[in-house]
Amino acid sequence: MAPPAVDPDRLRKELEAIVGPRRVSMRPVDLDTYARDMWPRLLLARRAGAPPAHLPYAVVWPESAREVASLVKRARALGVPIIPYGGGSGVCGGVVPVHGGVTLDLKRMQALRSVRGDELIADVEAGLSGERFERDLARRGFTFGNFPSSIYCSTVGGWLATRAAGQLSTKYGKVEDRVAGLTVVTGTGELIDTDGPSRALGGPSWTQLVLGSEGTLGVITSARLRLAPAPQLRVFRGFEVGSVAAGTEAIRRVLQRGLRPAVVRLYDELDTFLNSLKPGGGHGDGRDDRRQHAFAPAPLPGEGALPVLPGPPASDRDDGPLRRLLALGRRGSRGLRQDAMGALLSRPRAVNGLVGAVAEKLARKGCRLIIGLEGARIRTEIEAALTFAELERAGCKDLGEEPGKQWLAHRYAVSYKMSPAFRDGAFVDTMEVASSWEQLMDLYHSVRAAIGRHAVVMAHFSHAYPEGCSIYFTFAGHADDRAGSERLYDAIWRDGLEAATRVGGTISHHHGVGLLKGPYMFGEHREAMSLLHGLKRTLDPDDIMNPGKLGLVHPHAPEVDGSGGAGGPGGGGRP
Amino acid sequence: MAPPAVDPDRLRKELEAIVGPRRVSMRPVDLDTYARDMWPRLLLARRAGAPPAHLPYAVVWPESAREVASLVKRARALGVPIIPYGGGSGVCGGVVPVHGGVTLDLKRMQALRSVRGDELIADVEAGLSGERFERDLARRGFTFGNFPSSIYCSTVGGWLATRAAGQLSTKYGKVEDRVAGLTVVTGTGELIDTDGPSRALGGPSWTQLVLGSEGTLGVITSARLRLAPAPQLRVFRGFEVGSVAAGTEAIRRVLQRGLRPAVVRLYDELDTFLNSLKPGGGHGDGRDDRRQHAFAPAPLPGEGALPVLPGPPASDRDDGPLRRLLALGRRGSRGLRQDAMGALLSRPRAVNGLVGAVAEKLARKGCRLIIGLEGARIRTEIEAALTFAELERAGCKDLGEEPGKQWLAHRYAVSYKMSPAFRDGAFVDTMEVASSWEQLMDLYHSVRAAIGRHAVVMAHFSHAYPEGCSIYFTFAGHADDRAGSERLYDAIWRDGLEAATRVGGTISHHHGVGLLKGPYMFGEHREAMSLLHGLKRTLDPDDIMNPGKLGLVHPHAPEVDGSGGAGGPGGGGRP
Repeated sequence: MAPPAVDPDRLRKELEAIVGPRRVSMRPVDLDTYARDMWPRLLLARRAGAPPAHLPYAVVWPESAREVASLVKRARALGVPIIPYGGGSGVCGGVVPVHGGVTLDLKRMQALRSVRGDELIADVEAGLSGERFERDLARRGFTFGNFPSSIYCSTVGGWLATRAAGQLSTKYGKVEDRVAGLTVVTGTGELIDTDGPSRALGGPSWTQLVLGSEGTLGVITSARLRLAPAPQLRVFRGFEVGSVAAGTEAIRRVLQRGLRPAVVRLYDELDTFLNSLKPGGGHGDGRDDRRQHAFAPAPLPGEGALPVLPGPPASDRDDGPLRRLLALGRRGSRGLRQDAMGALLSRPRAVNGLVGAVAEKLARKGCRLIIGLEGARIRTEIEAALTFAELERAGCKDLGEEPGKQWLAHRYAVSYKMSPAFRDGAFVDTMEVASSWEQLMDLYHSVRAAIGRHAVVMAHFSHAYPEGCSIYFTFAGHADDRAGSERLYDAIWRDGLEAATRVGGTISHHHGVGLLKGPYMFGEHREAMSLLHGLKRTLDPDDIMNPGKLGLVHPHAPEVDGSGGAGGPGGGGRP
Repeated sequence: MAPPAVDPDRLRKELEAIVGPRRVSMRPVDLDTYARDMWPRLLLARRAGAPPAHLPYAVVWPESAREVASLVKRARALGVPIIPYGGGSGVCGGVVPVHGGVTLDLKRMQALRSVRGDELIADVEAGLSGERFERDLARRGFTFGNFPSSIYCSTVGGWLATRAAGQLSTKYGKVEDRVAGLTVVTGTGELIDTDGPSRALGGPSWTQLVLGSEGTLGVITSARLRLAPAPQLRVFRGFEVGSVAAGTEAIRRVLQRGLRPAVVRLYDELDTFLNSLKPGGGHGDGRDDRRQHAFAPAPLPGEGALPVLPGPPASDRDDGPLRRLLALGRRGSRGLRQDAMGALLSRPRAVNGLVGAVAEKLARKGCRLIIGLEGARIRTEIEAALTFAELERAGCKDLGEEPGKQWLAHRYAVSYKMSPAFRDGAFVDTMEVASSWEQLMDLYHSVRAAIGRHAVVMAHFSHAYPEGCSIYFTFAGHADDRAGSERLYDAIWRDGLEAATRVGGTISHHHGVGLLKGPYMFGEHREAMSLLHGLKRTLDPDDIMNPGKLGLVHPHAPEVDGSGGAGGPGGGGRP
């Protein structure tokens, strides 16, 4: 790790001069904590007992945009990087301080400043947790509509910096579809508002440039976000459909008729099969699942209160296909479990083939499709009727509302599934790609095959739009040691993203780029990467804003040890 | 006018080397034609017989993005500006070659390359006329949904460069809401695609930066645009409402319940009054209006074919409140007419007051509101029922479908109304501002008062969104000579836009900025103007792309004679 460019005592004094002594920390435990996010590759090193390859010099908790601006100006004068930090739930290493620097935790900036119901606009600070944001809005009769599985441990600012999407994005859009304006501190310490009054503006709009920039152009300190009235009714339904191809075609038809269900999730054969292993086979009444898990988050407002769904809050009892997959190899003592798991996951091609064949046999009815609608009462009833009729015309078989209720009850559980797998010596991760409808089946087969050479893989289709859809691959791999696991992990991502790019898919639907996908930015943006470099020079001339991310190369970049992501065709992405 | 920076013969040879001799013109009639758009201030000079203050050096008709790239590279090497040109229907002087240069008319690039119905995406070249685009789409069962009154004389590229909006924008959005990606030639001659697969992209999105840049960052050569299925049903309805405040409140409630009528137009008292002078008082059966005017455009496909509206194409007989206003002073010979018009328009405060008072008396029923819905049959029927019920709850009185049919029959006529007014010695123009709902009445009263000091003014509210609405002011002024007319014209814009900015409104909802509103860009963008300058330096380092527009100042700018726009607080907008 490169030594700090500035004497730590001096840095501390300079920072304390801006925010006072209580909101600056150089304690090892804080530096260690803020050295990472939930990127699985970092967890492999962690599990092996390795210290973080990169630590921040300090962690600071600013309380206002003005403080952020002062901190950035000071950091610039000192030549020290700034890394904005939200909930730390990212899965791409976006907050790793690869060139050192000062990490700004924005969670003390968490005011919901105003909710203008007449305009359906909320003015909110970037550090507010997603859960609290939705809770406060629900009390006032509104929703922002962004419900990622990380909602309990991610912030509004993190959503905006990474172009996040929630489980209801087919109705409400991705976060970038719901932003009226941003307040941003650029790399020169300038404070800029990107708002246009009532969606109209003379000249270019900056909002979409800052969204998704992951801290490399500036720090998002607050946002004006578009709200919707809280739903009066939710309608959920499960369907069976013969194949993923038939299922995606049915979804496409629904969307292109202008219907906008909130939840659209189509599980492929393996994912459907694992769902069917669940108590009640996914057709039960859900009562078995109502026991609260120790880590289960409290239900969000509205859950349980809406007419159709008086169901229980999220439970963790037996609620993820991934966990059930891992459970196949988990019997007896921990040592035995690890051996079984290792044996299973070390033969991914065989397992993928075998499980695929068994799954197809067992899940004879095909693939599971979950559809949910919500909104104003009358319109939702009508939209649901039209949606279900269209799906039946497309060959989907109605299974009633139970599968949908099951999904709703466990909707956030997936974020809390990784630890057991890692504990048992394996690793798991997800790869969310997307394409137009035309390329979708190519994308599915080629990425699945690419991952399947290395790991056990399953997928579901969600986040559907009139022009295309995303695919969410879940994979589990295993190697005997840290080096082997990292090599395997990197190979999965390299082959998976190369396959996605080859068929015209995107490298990220909603998890962002960070360190993990930086090398693939050029493959996606091509000549437009020169715009990004030009813009970076303008907004952050000294490259102090989260350097080394988004495929932007630090002018005096050292070899990035242990955090270079998938490695892959690195040179390709780096000018 | 500054002399060309390059010898004309050499320039011609260089241009002909790229596109051949038949697609380069230096003929005076072409240079004169391409020296202007429909900015009324230029028409004042034109009427006075003055030659254009600025001519291009040459006009070129490229046929491919590659040719455009070559032309830009060549122009850059020669130090010659490039001005992209679409239909020439702009009303802000955006195509005036204030620093000379080569005007690129893109109308030979008019291919509708593909319509991917499965994804609701059209790939279209920038020079395609709006009318032909919609006609071709309609034949295939789709619509882009952008119907500006200029649709017969504007191009897709012009729409995108200025963030245009059509009459159905409440349902379909402004054009910028429907762009999946753009192909752009930057000021360095680089060809860049801004597409993201299926709305997802790693990192920032460039699309929204190029939209609205009015040729100052590059030339848009083609676009991937989002389509909707062609409507199966149109439902139109007129309402009466006590005041503009009550009417806007009713509209807000409709939109915030999630309903999306396509057409929402609320006319203020004067505008409503002038509508009521029409034969049949706006309540007739419209048969009187079916006579085709010599200049009436052919009906667009779908018009006349949809179940509810088998009506006639646009007619020009007596179809604009503006024309009726002007007709008040138009009796007898041309000389007499001009005198009467002059007398009327020279006392705007008195006329505004008097007409306002009379209008309020006569149009006792209040303000006219036109609502139109379109889309898939069942959903449109239901959405219409819910919309009309909400409006009646808000105190609006249902007048039946006739007022809506009247509006539909004349929807494009306004674009062909300016000539008679100019012929009779007056001038007319429109100012389209917008704000959040909270500021809307402030915006209305303050801009109306500001314009009303100088001209007879009326307004309607259209382009409504959940967070706000635009106001479209129409004004007519008169002075004795060109200098007086220009002074008056500039004063109207200065006072109107200053009033709009003061209450937090935007300076342009959909007409763009051009020369006219350049001085007010700083008032709207503030610190973000430094981003625009930085970006301009990156994409167009030699400032050859439509220099002098959007409030961006040419590094070696001469005093811009006769085209400086409203003048106004010039310094404020120019760094």
